[in-house]
Amino acid sequence: MTYCVGMAVDQGIVLLADTRTNAGVDNIATFSKLNVIEEPGDRVIAMMSAGNLAITQAVAARVLEGAGAPVSPDGAPPMTLATAPSMFDAARLVGEAVREVFKHDGEALQAQNFSFEASFLLAGQIKGRRLRLFHIYSAGNFIESTPDSPFLQIGEHKYGKPILDRVARFDTPIEDAVKLACISMDSTLRSNLSVGLPADLLIYRRDALKISARRRITEDDAYFRSIRDGWSNALRDAYRAMPAPPWPMG
Amino acid sequence: MTYCVGMAVDQGIVLLADTRTNAGVDNIATFSKLNVIEEPGDRVIAMMSAGNLAITQAVAARVLEGAGAPVSPDGAPPMTLATAPSMFDAARLVGEAVREVFKHDGEALQAQNFSFEASFLLAGQIKGRRLRLFHIYSAGNFIESTPDSPFLQIGEHKYGKPILDRVARFDTPIEDAVKLACISMDSTLRSNLSVGLPADLLIYRRDALKISARRRITEDDAYFRSIRDGWSNALRDAYRAMPAPPWPMG
Repeated sequence: MTYCVGMAVDQGIVLLADTRTNAGVDNIATFSKLNVIEEPGDRVIAMMSAGNLAITQAVAARVLEGAGAPVSPDGAPPMTLATAPSMFDAARLVGEAVREVFKHDGEALQAQNFSFEASFLLAGQIKGRRLRLFHIYSAGNFIESTPDSPFLQIGEHKYGKPILDRVARFDTPIEDAVKLACISMDSTLRSNLSVGLPADLLIYRRDALKISARRRITEDDAYFRSIRDGWSNALRDAYRAMPAPPWPMG
Repeated sequence: MTYCVGMAVDQGIVLLADTRTNAGVDNIATFSKLNVIEEPGDRVIAMMSAGNLAITQAVAARVLEGAGAPVSPDGAPPMTLATAPSMFDAARLVGEAVREVFKHDGEALQAQNFSFEASFLLAGQIKGRRLRLFHIYSAGNFIESTPDSPFLQIGEHKYGKPILDRVARFDTPIEDAVKLACISMDSTLRSNLSVGLPADLLIYRRDALKISARRRITEDDAYFRSIRDGWSNALRDAYRAMPAPPWPMG
């Protein structure tokens, strides 16, 4: 399984993806689910993926390198995330790539009762244009994050959602958005074995047009451990501080 | 959908069940999912259910009243939760009832592509015997809560699990277990529309052999509202108090 969370807040974007893939519980491996294109001064585009790894890698190869793209009649090179003129075009490109992979592999997967599962978070900014965060579905269609809903999730999203539902807002400072992403990831890690560290973090400040921070968070990461322990303690203290039930209880 | 949580801690049992049922988002209704047998001095047995309402009601009718029970060759009345000699027998009875309903309805459901979904939490104590909490599956088999895992959940369990995973322990005082159940329920209510108030709460103190408290929690319940607001505020304060990321962030 997978857990990826993306937040698009006023100050920028925070993306966090785990790296565990598994085929059954007895076959786990580490694969990065975060791909980033950076052309300083022109664009930063990041894509996180969840679902069948063969599908998501095929999509990544298509949108990053043009691998498997239909040949253009005029011989022009295929569009990639490095050349997409807008984030909307980039999201469409990912959607088209999923459809191409479905056309190529869908029937064979179905013949063996594998469902065609793949979803993507695509976030970034191109020079002169808006910062955007999209969720692209396995059918190739997509939705966009808005200030009302400043976060999107793919994969095992439920365990990490309550904290985001309660406190994530568009005006959350970017440092706090990093904290929230880490707390949300930690809640998921604790409850679902198929989500695992290390995790890949990307921070992009609005209009920077370069990566603001990128980090691989391992089990030894002092900050993530401080969040992990601190949050458990904080929850314990918080629930103890809640009022006791006022009802007669026997 | 449904969310039910049961905790069996050192001091007793806390059960909390929402009451929303739905067939699609445009057809919702309120049904209690908590049934309780109380014979003061002899037994308290409570059952919460999730899944297809027709199935769970048929099971409840069977185990509470003997409705639809196979006729005994010697004309003896069928065993019910009121007569089961032990909690283990009671759990087996629920399991057998699920299997009887499956035998009666399973094929017709399958013919219309409805899956046979039903699960139950059964908790209580019979005079002279141990307090127990069971989770009975749709196949009629079951597991029991232990001090290592003092809570069990059925229905939409993921949103409300992180707080339990982090702080619920066998030595949690029963008042705190009530708080935790309310917090867990509130997290679920916020994230899944198909889980809704009112909720039914039951508290049973070990060896009391009578109900210690039973309460229907409505939207107007002052205590539940104080938990709801207090918890959101506590989470907000807690995450703000977490350390800021120490990494350079552009």
